[in-house]
Amino acid sequence: MSKILRVNTKSKQFSFESPGKSLAGLGGRALTSRMLLNEVPATCHPLGRTNKLIFAPGLLSGTAAANSGRISVGAKSPLTGGIKESNAGGMVSQKLAKLGIKALILEDKPEDDDYSIIFIKKDHVEIISANDYKGMGNKDLITALLAKYGKKAGIACIGPAGENRMTAASIQFADPKGRPGRAAGRGGLGAVMGSKKVKAIIVDDTGSDKVPLAYPDAFKKANKIWAKMLTSHPVSGEGLPALGTAVLVNVVNEAGGLPTKNFRNGRFDDVQEISGEKMVENIGERGGIVREGCHPGCVIQCSQVYHDKNGKYLTSGFEYETIWAFGAHCMIKDLDDIAVMDALCDDFGVDTIDTGVAVGVAMEAGIIPWGDGKAAIELVKKIGTDDPMGRILGNGAAFTGQAFGVDRVPVVKKQALPAYDPRVVKAVGVTYATTPMGADHTAGYGVCQNILKVGGYIDGLVNSENVETSKTLQIATAAIDAAGLCLFVAFPVLDDEKGVSVIVDLLNAQYGLALTPEDVVNLGVATLKDEYEFNLKAGFTIADDRLPEMFSESVPPHNVSWDFTDEELQQSKPV
Amino acid sequence: MSKILRVNTKSKQFSFESPGKSLAGLGGRALTSRMLLNEVPATCHPLGRTNKLIFAPGLLSGTAAANSGRISVGAKSPLTGGIKESNAGGMVSQKLAKLGIKALILEDKPEDDDYSIIFIKKDHVEIISANDYKGMGNKDLITALLAKYGKKAGIACIGPAGENRMTAASIQFADPKGRPGRAAGRGGLGAVMGSKKVKAIIVDDTGSDKVPLAYPDAFKKANKIWAKMLTSHPVSGEGLPALGTAVLVNVVNEAGGLPTKNFRNGRFDDVQEISGEKMVENIGERGGIVREGCHPGCVIQCSQVYHDKNGKYLTSGFEYETIWAFGAHCMIKDLDDIAVMDALCDDFGVDTIDTGVAVGVAMEAGIIPWGDGKAAIELVKKIGTDDPMGRILGNGAAFTGQAFGVDRVPVVKKQALPAYDPRVVKAVGVTYATTPMGADHTAGYGVCQNILKVGGYIDGLVNSENVETSKTLQIATAAIDAAGLCLFVAFPVLDDEKGVSVIVDLLNAQYGLALTPEDVVNLGVATLKDEYEFNLKAGFTIADDRLPEMFSESVPPHNVSWDFTDEELQQSKPV
Repeated sequence: MSKILRVNTKSKQFSFESPGKSLAGLGGRALTSRMLLNEVPATCHPLGRTNKLIFAPGLLSGTAAANSGRISVGAKSPLTGGIKESNAGGMVSQKLAKLGIKALILEDKPEDDDYSIIFIKKDHVEIISANDYKGMGNKDLITALLAKYGKKAGIACIGPAGENRMTAASIQFADPKGRPGRAAGRGGLGAVMGSKKVKAIIVDDTGSDKVPLAYPDAFKKANKIWAKMLTSHPVSGEGLPALGTAVLVNVVNEAGGLPTKNFRNGRFDDVQEISGEKMVENIGERGGIVREGCHPGCVIQCSQVYHDKNGKYLTSGFEYETIWAFGAHCMIKDLDDIAVMDALCDDFGVDTIDTGVAVGVAMEAGIIPWGDGKAAIELVKKIGTDDPMGRILGNGAAFTGQAFGVDRVPVVKKQALPAYDPRVVKAVGVTYATTPMGADHTAGYGVCQNILKVGGYIDGLVNSENVETSKTLQIATAAIDAAGLCLFVAFPVLDDEKGVSVIVDLLNAQYGLALTPEDVVNLGVATLKDEYEFNLKAGFTIADDRLPEMFSESVPPHNVSWDFTDEELQQSKPV
Repeated sequence: MSKILRVNTKSKQFSFESPGKSLAGLGGRALTSRMLLNEVPATCHPLGRTNKLIFAPGLLSGTAAANSGRISVGAKSPLTGGIKESNAGGMVSQKLAKLGIKALILEDKPEDDDYSIIFIKKDHVEIISANDYKGMGNKDLITALLAKYGKKAGIACIGPAGENRMTAASIQFADPKGRPGRAAGRGGLGAVMGSKKVKAIIVDDTGSDKVPLAYPDAFKKANKIWAKMLTSHPVSGEGLPALGTAVLVNVVNEAGGLPTKNFRNGRFDDVQEISGEKMVENIGERGGIVREGCHPGCVIQCSQVYHDKNGKYLTSGFEYETIWAFGAHCMIKDLDDIAVMDALCDDFGVDTIDTGVAVGVAMEAGIIPWGDGKAAIELVKKIGTDDPMGRILGNGAAFTGQAFGVDRVPVVKKQALPAYDPRVVKAVGVTYATTPMGADHTAGYGVCQNILKVGGYIDGLVNSENVETSKTLQIATAAIDAAGLCLFVAFPVLDDEKGVSVIVDLLNAQYGLALTPEDVVNLGVATLKDEYEFNLKAGFTIADDRLPEMFSESVPPHNVSWDFTDEELQQSKPV
């Protein structure tokens, strides 16, 4: 019943196939990574015809399991040159799952300049010319597509940045209300979609059956416990719903780990101006929405809608990392300026982290002054044009650093570091260094133990225990990504000894299996091993598993630096 | 007597030191590579304070040995991320050698924006503000410096591209007549000099002693045989003096190995318009010089001066690779347009190969039309400005490919392939793949055996014997670079069984040693091993020793493709 859909973007042919034994039990990131390892030459050009772009719902996606609607997108990354899984909310995951599609694989690439829409319905696929939508931003594109293909369609699409095949290009997913605020942002997967000249994927699950459950009653029971667990934890049940992920602005600043002025300080003087509290205050005064989910079935509701001073819609899904990248990192203290840039990034289809960090790198080079939000907006606007400056910024922070000859460029495997100083939040620093994804907080979110004191407390200022902490989290995260669960389920799972077993109960009730928690851990380990193997073949070595030189400087206020050895860091990788 | 000069570019302190035992017997590339391995952290940022820029005359430099005045410049390359030696003619090598300076090492980097000139005289160094020269092109800069510091000074300097720390930035060397036509072009070493805020190095050897010779008579005798050998070989004694390196345009085109339209064809329809014969015809009609040397003591004289239609000086050192890069590669058939771009590159200080290939990649992206010389000139002009398009092109072909999302980018280790199609001239193709330098014809010039039938004939269209040929040449070249000899001595050396022993005689007579030809081979092997070790530490693997995917296509007229396995290619590296 569950099947793989292959679309050849050159011949416009498609086929359904049975997944085969080797892919049994895999979903989401576990599936995309395994298929990439099996099918894509690790040394191919990421924008060439032999790369593939794979969309895979998680194992639990499409069911009623709370927070299980994340989708994994995988390809060889044009940004890092290694394997990539980037995951997002939106509507596509659950709809693909309901259609029984375990993975959608885009293959080959056209030789002409014609763009396509891939329209997936029950047991049928149409490949339609998208030339009328060429050059269109994601906001108008999604509005137009929903109007034409039905308001309930799930949409994944690219903006001009993806069309221009820039290495910070994202794939945007329409959120439940048809806004482009959700993104598979990291690693330039939008460029891969652009290279295959696919402007949008539309999924209409009308007429689909429900995702089959082996033991419906057991599933229902487990899901009740699961939802309760998520809503009763102080982080996922209180902090995130109240202030969104921006709850972290003040928390991380207080901990001295909010990277400020391109990682020169761990605290930002104007932090109150860009805090979650300020965001919610603005929403209260101007209208907007404080709490909403990125996909149906979300019980955490950390997303929001942010309006401008005139009460007009500005952006949605206004995340902590975005606020940090354009905010403290660039010394910009006007939250509205930051929101404008968030909206521009979503519309052009670029990763807000890599783009924000790139703007800071451009400030480092003296292109615009530190803290100048209006000048930053003008820079970001160029990404949506053919202006060469846009080509520079749209290729991300590492590229911008090279363009302007900057040696202070916070990247690992060319991917920009996110919003936690690795010297202060060392468990996440270890993750930045060794995850096969390039610097990525979501690959092993050591903020839990180092700052939030979730899953116990590990001091983030000293090396001790942080390698092991990162390792455990990297394994757990790979499994969470395979399940299609939101990363934030980690908070209750880490704090509740029954956490993992409830996930296992859900999987067993759905698939009629008898998995143990150990099996889930093994799934995480196997996924990481696939990813290491791909990167090894692509030419990565332990020299790529390091933070850049700049982190040997100590950072105020704690005046700590980064001094893990290669040997220590490698211990964070299960072998 | 022979000493190492260290200059700290931050503190403006300098010191002389004895080279120490571990550096005994090393010069040129052998010395720069050994010192980089010993002193520079392989994973440092190439533009950071821990990288070093090393200038080393060859072992024979400063003597009367014919064609021994080449200088090696080494650093961790901002372009490839690996070790780099780039060598050039000009006056600096011989003058440093006469001053007894075995190596000049620039260390650290300033934190301010003040530029310096390093003025080296007998037993003294002055570090002088160069702020008056900021932003100046190499042509005016050299003219001004020679006027101020004496017409006989040797000069190495950077133009705006080096100041902007772009990864195609060269270090230009004033030729014997004070023109900027000689370059350590490859690998972005000008960016390293720019990062250290050194605008120029001036060497005045007034009052220096002659380079000491242990056995002057034996040296004189060997040198006589040596010079005769160079002038009597058909390539170094006839072809190169008659037409310069541009003699190769017709020869390589005839062989079907002149890469045309970004490596889509091995022959260029308009080849006659850009041939060496055409160049010499133009020089004959317009004035200029057909034959001159890039350094005193050159008996091959493959350099020239090229005037425009009005008989006005346009450029000098107008090389085959430059003519190819802006010519056949870009489908540009106007030799004057190409000469204008050569002059612009020399003036801004960028590598003509990487820049020409970058222009072709921009044509691939549709930025300007194929073959449009005037549009290409306008693009190249931007490199000398702060225009973002200049920042893209000035960072070379790989960078330009990423900027514009092109997947057809002919680079190895991010360095652009030079003017010989690797599928047709497979011995040089193997060199491109495996030399630690990134794609570099000069690191193992298989054109000798594949096309020129020097050193025997090996068919360049089939795999057989070309790995071994490249290996032998890579070893020999490393030794030639260590000696400070011009690469073109390889022609007679390969064809004359006494070739290597004459070089050995020169070294023995100079240093009072009893080296054997085997020792010289061992020097080449040891140099390569140092370079492999550096690159290994920097994170290179065999996945970096490959040609890009595009070369699996077959190329007319011979319809051959590239299909060496990793295992085969690795055999070209001595271990």
